[in-house]
Amino acid sequence: MGAQINTDYSKVQQNYLFSTIAKKVSEFQVANPGKEIFRLGIGDTTQPLGQTVVKAMQDAAARLGDVKTYTGYGAEQGNLPLRQALANQYTSRGVELTADEIFVGDGAKTDSANIQSIFGLDNIVAVSDPAYPVYVDTNVISGRTGSAGKDGRFDGLIYMPCNSDNNFMPELPSRKADLIYLCSPNNPTGAVMSRERLGQFVDYARENKAVIFFDAAYAAFISDPDLPKSIYEIDGAKECAIELNSFSKSHGFTGVRLGWTVVPQKLVAVDALSEIGFTTPGQINGLWKRRQTTFFNGASNVVQAGGLAGLTEEGMKESRELVSFYMENARIIREGLSQTGLKIYGGTDAPFLWMKTPGGVDSWSFFDRLLNETRVVGTPGAGFGQAGEGYFRLSAFGHRDKTIAAVESIKANLKL
Amino acid sequence: MGAQINTDYSKVQQNYLFSTIAKKVSEFQVANPGKEIFRLGIGDTTQPLGQTVVKAMQDAAARLGDVKTYTGYGAEQGNLPLRQALANQYTSRGVELTADEIFVGDGAKTDSANIQSIFGLDNIVAVSDPAYPVYVDTNVISGRTGSAGKDGRFDGLIYMPCNSDNNFMPELPSRKADLIYLCSPNNPTGAVMSRERLGQFVDYARENKAVIFFDAAYAAFISDPDLPKSIYEIDGAKECAIELNSFSKSHGFTGVRLGWTVVPQKLVAVDALSEIGFTTPGQINGLWKRRQTTFFNGASNVVQAGGLAGLTEEGMKESRELVSFYMENARIIREGLSQTGLKIYGGTDAPFLWMKTPGGVDSWSFFDRLLNETRVVGTPGAGFGQAGEGYFRLSAFGHRDKTIAAVESIKANLKL
Repeated sequence: MGAQINTDYSKVQQNYLFSTIAKKVSEFQVANPGKEIFRLGIGDTTQPLGQTVVKAMQDAAARLGDVKTYTGYGAEQGNLPLRQALANQYTSRGVELTADEIFVGDGAKTDSANIQSIFGLDNIVAVSDPAYPVYVDTNVISGRTGSAGKDGRFDGLIYMPCNSDNNFMPELPSRKADLIYLCSPNNPTGAVMSRERLGQFVDYARENKAVIFFDAAYAAFISDPDLPKSIYEIDGAKECAIELNSFSKSHGFTGVRLGWTVVPQKLVAVDALSEIGFTTPGQINGLWKRRQTTFFNGASNVVQAGGLAGLTEEGMKESRELVSFYMENARIIREGLSQTGLKIYGGTDAPFLWMKTPGGVDSWSFFDRLLNETRVVGTPGAGFGQAGEGYFRLSAFGHRDKTIAAVESIKANLKL
Repeated sequence: MGAQINTDYSKVQQNYLFSTIAKKVSEFQVANPGKEIFRLGIGDTTQPLGQTVVKAMQDAAARLGDVKTYTGYGAEQGNLPLRQALANQYTSRGVELTADEIFVGDGAKTDSANIQSIFGLDNIVAVSDPAYPVYVDTNVISGRTGSAGKDGRFDGLIYMPCNSDNNFMPELPSRKADLIYLCSPNNPTGAVMSRERLGQFVDYARENKAVIFFDAAYAAFISDPDLPKSIYEIDGAKECAIELNSFSKSHGFTGVRLGWTVVPQKLVAVDALSEIGFTTPGQINGLWKRRQTTFFNGASNVVQAGGLAGLTEEGMKESRELVSFYMENARIIREGLSQTGLKIYGGTDAPFLWMKTPGGVDSWSFFDRLLNETRVVGTPGAGFGQAGEGYFRLSAFGHRDKTIAAVESIKANLKL
């Protein structure tokens, strides 16, 4: 018959959410030449790298230009000093991890997309609703969900709805789940899971031998000391959770590309082929290592040098300044829009704000209205799942003047 | 039951080839402290980046450190000037490609590992034997091959043996293949496919609606003007072939990470869900775009800036010097070892040399002998497949003095 395509691709939405937005913005710009756009949309960062990071990358490039200091392929899991520095960050929060439990990658998107591949296709997957589209799409493409119904939902997925009734914190899966995606601080809602709720998930996972994928890419934005920055702050989490994190937002690395994934040696799951029916300690860690050494060749050495510098005392000072800058944006958006009567969630321990669309209008219609009436680009909540319908995401990653201008434009021009 | 692991991982060899070698070398070093090792093994580069590339990466880092020139996420398929520069390189060889047919990635390993994922699991895969292990391993892990037999071969794969009888050039698959991996110049044999043989594969693919994955990562090492550097030099290849390439060896980017994949708009395959039964032009290109935008977030912007500089006139001059340096190593190895009576193939238009093990000893035993008797590390041919048994790969990517020392050590110490 010939080479057949993977027809599971036909089951995902035709366009990736942010591609669709980019296309709409581009069309608006063509139709409205010269009009400035205020982007509170994709969550792309705007503030520069710290000088410590810049210098470290420049020095790394210089070393690669000298035969005496040139290096080729990097270490399999990432450079050891970088993994050690990451482990030390956990230690400072009371979490003991070893460098061999940390895998350096090229960003949390890649790892959160690929982590499902070391698990079987028969696992039942639970996702928050709304959720970062990558969690759903990668499971659809991998053949774990079947086709979507008319409402856009997949029968093969368990949705954990997040809304104002539960403070946008997912509740335990309604039926038995094997793989559970959690993101806290949450993209898109900006909600942070409490220690108690996260503890319930860890207990659930241990009881049901489920595995939690904990996306902590926005952990640096948590200022409330009572909120967990890592799932491993919860007792027992090392036996049931993989954590993903990133330099993208804490250090401005969205285009530079660096992240890491923690696969504890204690983590176990079901291995139908083994005599005991379960994996032995270290086996899941080894599976991810095999996956990464087969399908990946490491994050760029220049970038890893930048990341290492970003974890030094000076680099962390620059990171905290960056985080503070964006959180001041979040405050400006939250307080400014709240004055207009718009209902705003998030934005206190997360760089995202989650807005109820006024008058209950659907979120793509609100996207068009906001763009046309105020020239502000946001992200329609429906793009993150059915429970996101009627909501709208705003990001705090803009320039200060543009953020202020966007808030003023909404206040002045949005027909509420 | 709980979270189940992907049991297809149990079907691949336990250790990635180069991890096993690294372990053996490490053990030798512990047992023989202070003894220098000569590495002609993994194919890791040793010569520095060109200064044009270094400066471009340093400038890119500086731009990212300035709020006025900072940029976040890059363009979906890679920066347009880089894709345009790559397209121009093909034009100079008489191949017309557009920038939207080129996808910038973080290296040919990643792309050659992932390219299979946009095709269905029922496709029959053909690989050269010996072959780069990633082609086989990624298909095993994805569930396309079943388990290996006692001989290490997978019934689900078609092997195309390459040996001295066919000048190490694969012959057409013995039964109907849907997806065909070709690598030319070849890793590990150093053989380059002739225009005639490549033409036979293109004809075969068009007749059988098969798709060829053409790994051209070593194309820069071809000096013979009659040998094809791109499969698109063959008429009709755009309808049936995806080409993968890399900056790793031509520009010393093994640790820097940059590559690209060409998916022509004309490429078509079978789409069982479509009315016509085949994909429409552009559909495979769109599938790969969807794959990359869902599972990947682009190569590092700093690295892409380095790659773009590497394609300028000055950057290409540095690349040619780098290639010449390594090819002089290849000449030294080839001529030196030939004097001892060892039978050497490759190394004229490729940075790899393929040696018949003396006395027909198996290639892992020869690995141990070579390490213990001469302190030279190479790669056992059996690590690349059954037809590699009795052969041994040497790489020309070493330092000049170490390469000479390795050759001298083999000449002086190997008990032939």
